[in-house]
Amino acid sequence: MAANVYVGLVHYPIYNKHEQVVATAITNFDIHDIARTTRTYGIATYFLIHPHEAQAQLANEIMEHWQQGGGAQYNPDRQEAFRVVEVAASIESTIAEIEKREGKRPRVVTTDARIFPNTVSYAKVREQISQGDEPVLLLFGTGWGIEKETMAAFDSILEPIYGPSDYNHLPVRAAVAIILDRLLGESWWTKA
Amino acid sequence: MAANVYVGLVHYPIYNKHEQVVATAITNFDIHDIARTTRTYGIATYFLIHPHEAQAQLANEIMEHWQQGGGAQYNPDRQEAFRVVEVAASIESTIAEIEKREGKRPRVVTTDARIFPNTVSYAKVREQISQGDEPVLLLFGTGWGIEKETMAAFDSILEPIYGPSDYNHLPVRAAVAIILDRLLGESWWTKA
Repeated sequence: MAANVYVGLVHYPIYNKHEQVVATAITNFDIHDIARTTRTYGIATYFLIHPHEAQAQLANEIMEHWQQGGGAQYNPDRQEAFRVVEVAASIESTIAEIEKREGKRPRVVTTDARIFPNTVSYAKVREQISQGDEPVLLLFGTGWGIEKETMAAFDSILEPIYGPSDYNHLPVRAAVAIILDRLLGESWWTKA
Repeated sequence: MAANVYVGLVHYPIYNKHEQVVATAITNFDIHDIARTTRTYGIATYFLIHPHEAQAQLANEIMEHWQQGGGAQYNPDRQEAFRVVEVAASIESTIAEIEKREGKRPRVVTTDARIFPNTVSYAKVREQISQGDEPVLLLFGTGWGIEKETMAAFDSILEPIYGPSDYNHLPVRAAVAIILDRLLGESWWTKA
């Protein structure tokens, strides 16, 4: 179990398509899909990181519907997935919360379509996670990516995901799924 | 490039939660997310498989908006992703269409949370694809899965995706992303 691995979906500070730094909207689909994926891979908590109180409120209302309202009876699997989701106001408060729970500041790992000086391989982070000595926070950006000075301050940046094509615009929901499978999935490539 | 690998999202025959066989609705999000993922992994065509003309029409209208309408200017990456999407009326007609294009019937591979007699490993299918001798059609179910006699007639069934938890309810959009990465992604585990 990945008891000390956390995921955060960052809604600020994010670039929009005009390279302005903005807060993006929380979407229903990012909550649902990423909750089910993080729950499958045994993630401790999936943090929706957003600075605005009204957006946090909206996310909590959606989750309450599926956890306590009509949704809980309609779809118990979804209720179960939502147990891992929490809302946080900033990247710093997410890190502080994990430090409080784990007694140790997490290694902050993110991913980007660009290469940075602190870029590391999937095999390396997989090994760090399997050793389990320190908590890990995997951050994913929304919109056109996390603001670049914020990125540079993280501990490690995972290499971009390349498919066998020149097109590289995976939805964040797909990127989370692929990256959790690479870091936490079974070693399928060793099975004939 | 995975020039002869195809993906189909099956909307009939599908189980609903009461184990009745139904046609599920095409969703906007399945079109968008899976188009971007299949385009990234170099898939030849992503078939939306649905027997009802009205649903096919709806899918085509959504795609036309993003390919020729206001959407094409707003988001050219999405326009590019949609080039790979087509609508087909049935699994059989999808297979026939691929056979017509490739001059050879495709190997039909699917995936399921259950284990079947024709279950195969990811490593095996990855090897078959890399040899490139025959076209491959990867089918994914919606709803509560593809009807079981239909499943049994396919050539191979990929093992379920296990994360390190007892919960196994990945969204189909996440399953497509993980499986394409396992079958067509770079060999990231060999990079230190």
